Amino acid sequence: MIGADAVPHTFTPIATLYTCFKEKFGVPRQMNLVPAAKGQLVFDPAFANMDAVRDLEKFSHIWLIFVFHQTRDKTWSALVRPPRLGGNKKTGVFATRSPFRPNPIGISAVKLESVENSCDGPVLHLSGVDIVNETPVLDIKPYIPWADAIVRADGGFADKRPASRLQVIFSSEAQTQCRKMTKQIPNLASLITQILENDPRPGYRAGPTTKDKKIYGIRLYDLDVKWQITDGIARILSLDPIK
Amino acid sequence: MIGADAVPHTFTPIATLYTCFKEKFGVPRQMNLVPAAKGQLVFDPAFANMDAVRDLEKFSHIWLIFVFHQTRDKTWSALVRPPRLGGNKKTGVFATRSPFRPNPIGISAVKLESVENSCDGPVLHLSGVDIVNETPVLDIKPYIPWADAIVRADGGFADKRPASRLQVIFSSEAQTQCRKMTKQIPNLASLITQILENDPRPGYRAGPTTKDKKIYGIRLYDLDVKWQITDGIARILSLDPIK
Repeated sequence: MIGADAVPHTFTPIATLYTCFKEKFGVPRQMNLVPAAKGQLVFDPAFANMDAVRDLEKFSHIWLIFVFHQTRDKTWSALVRPPRLGGNKKTGVFATRSPFRPNPIGISAVKLESVENSCDGPVLHLSGVDIVNETPVLDIKPYIPWADAIVRADGGFADKRPASRLQVIFSSEAQTQCRKMTKQIPNLASLITQILENDPRPGYRAGPTTKDKKIYGIRLYDLDVKWQITDGIARILSLDPIK
Repeated sequence: MIGADAVPHTFTPIATLYTCFKEKFGVPRQMNLVPAAKGQLVFDPAFANMDAVRDLEKFSHIWLIFVFHQTRDKTWSALVRPPRLGGNKKTGVFATRSPFRPNPIGISAVKLESVENSCDGPVLHLSGVDIVNETPVLDIKPYIPWADAIVRADGGFADKRPASRLQVIFSSEAQTQCRKMTKQIPNLASLITQILENDPRPGYRAGPTTKDKKIYGIRLYDLDVKWQITDGIARILSLDPIK
């Protein structure tokens, strides 16, 4: 009875998600960890139909089923090292949400802020996204609390919300640069703070007590944000436009 | 910026899910509504590797990402009539979990009862399944309670667990037939009771007060179960082997 339907299935994205995250580094490790992380879901012309999203705005959260397009052509291994286990203990790929998987499909339940009726069809405004820019989306489903919120579930090694919370401060230079960007990105300071509070460093470097002199860079929108961690405090050094 | 990645994506199932549900009618409308509904996930030989599921047994629930293979080749409409709205009000397809959708992909968080190390590789024993037999599965992910259980979510028209609970009784003939099957299917009576309590009839017929003389049939394992609803009571008439 094995492999009764191992034929390939082909799906064409219905929409593209645009977010502040230009690259994988810095993307929150689950949804809703960074409420200031916004996204706009723009439908492909073939699906850009207000009828198809009728009543969707009644739901506060929606599931996105998407393609990990940046890892799509990468190989996968049966064992991975999840950041939650410090990045040095091996776990089965199906016991993790690693983007390097046999079928690089992701699921994410994000907050639906509003549904815009634009001249190009519906645009969904989302927050709490943990998805990289230009991600192809295969499907959208409403989040159904009585079915999806299994509060009695046991989450194994990922049972608790990550505790490592860093304090975040802006250097005076970064503060000046941030202020200049306020018109284009009103919530930029919150966004940077929320991302760094969650400590996006790889597992083996993370933790407030680790000695770590490295200057890190993360690309948000068209900005290159640089920071350094000293004594458990993430200090934003600069926010420069990407050349 | 529209349609930046509207290229098709092809996925090959990693596993096949075997369940008691031979056809769409009678499948619970969400997961965990019928705890007695069991399933066995059998991996395709290419993925039948105990390493790939290492530590998965530490999670009580897992997400299955699967293909609605019975509706795969059917057309979809922007508007559908969900059973929760009585089957006569139209709603956008993306505001529902209807299996008739542009990309027929389903997600379901089911209970992981155990992980068996069989001679054909891992077999996952599941319960609370709402998936038809021989469903191709594209991916498995752990259910992460602190991220996935959004208890403050607003579920729109599907905010509450369906209330319509029917009383279920077995005719003496059905009871005799059920008893004979106990060796093969120990929880058959619970399974039938839990399915019918949830009233699997189409929305326009459902509700305990509706006059409905129709005899319904549902195929579970290799049995054809017949029942009738009178005065809000579902009465099992017979359980006959499928010829």
